[in-house]
Amino acid sequence: MGMSKRELKKDLLLEAGLGVMATHGYNGTSIKDIVDAAEVPKGSFYTYFKSKEDFALEALERATEARNQESRALLEDTSLPPLERLTRYFRDYTGACDSGVTGGCFIGNMCQEMSDSSEVIRLKVRQLLRNNTEAIEAVLEEARRQGSLSSPQPSSVLAEYLFNAWEGTVMRMKAAKCREPLDAFLALLPIVVGQVNAN
Amino acid sequence: MGMSKRELKKDLLLEAGLGVMATHGYNGTSIKDIVDAAEVPKGSFYTYFKSKEDFALEALERATEARNQESRALLEDTSLPPLERLTRYFRDYTGACDSGVTGGCFIGNMCQEMSDSSEVIRLKVRQLLRNNTEAIEAVLEEARRQGSLSSPQPSSVLAEYLFNAWEGTVMRMKAAKCREPLDAFLALLPIVVGQVNAN
Repeated sequence: MGMSKRELKKDLLLEAGLGVMATHGYNGTSIKDIVDAAEVPKGSFYTYFKSKEDFALEALERATEARNQESRALLEDTSLPPLERLTRYFRDYTGACDSGVTGGCFIGNMCQEMSDSSEVIRLKVRQLLRNNTEAIEAVLEEARRQGSLSSPQPSSVLAEYLFNAWEGTVMRMKAAKCREPLDAFLALLPIVVGQVNAN
Repeated sequence: MGMSKRELKKDLLLEAGLGVMATHGYNGTSIKDIVDAAEVPKGSFYTYFKSKEDFALEALERATEARNQESRALLEDTSLPPLERLTRYFRDYTGACDSGVTGGCFIGNMCQEMSDSSEVIRLKVRQLLRNNTEAIEAVLEEARRQGSLSSPQPSSVLAEYLFNAWEGTVMRMKAAKCREPLDAFLALLPIVVGQVNAN
């Protein structure tokens, strides 16, 4: 029942370290910063992680899981029309990313900073971005079947476009510290998918 | 005539250091890395820059100027219809960003990595992103006056949206290392602006 002491300690390191790395970036975070944030002795880091790169891979998974529990539940909530779920998904996700808690989108941060210097991080980021894109594609397909989406573009192209546009929106909000990027994104969402309004 | 020896040396440091910082990020680049890349003694760095932060601010300006000479010329080339110029602007810019030379978009990289840790870098990034957005807005306004754009959204909102969507596209290409993000962006561009085709 519950987590073992070992699991709890690893959890603590991931949670505290993720907070530091989301704010200061991969290269701006040392292993000492991670253990200091978790308030554990430095040596214990290596009980759980082979390296900082190994830590970052697990932190990426963790950041995604935390978000996905909420966002998948929202995307799969068939009590709402599919395009309404999609709008909420972006609006709420952006709200969460903008809260400052995570310093923007951690996957996006690692993508920008590390894609050219760590191949394993690049591949992990690519996989996580692809998972998100596929979840959006599934909702778009559902909207299409229900006749609420009129775009002649394949849902895979729409999903790729929308998810990238949204990542860029979140990035811009980091610099702008205002709502305009999000508002512009939400204003164009129905146009991009060719939303058909119910009468 | 031409640049002084002093200017040339500063230029060399900026050019070489920008290359390193674009690939390894701000925190992944030390002042030693910058002087080593420029093959000058470490002490000379401080003749030209107060700090690494000061260097990054000038590198951001430089990265922008280098791009802007080409892209502004393209955006202002009235021999092409405005939306054609815009399409080329994104297509060519993305091509340049994807070449690997600059490790994606340097402004985008600094935005993601540094917005939460350096206020002066955040403000510089915000200004440069805004300049780009305004240049796009001007072309959209021209297209609107010519009747080739039918979107009821204000050009400022369209420009904000498109530039962010494009930054997200460039970011995704860093992880994906393929053309799909760019192709999806270019496929949706006419739909976002409500392009009116000439008969």
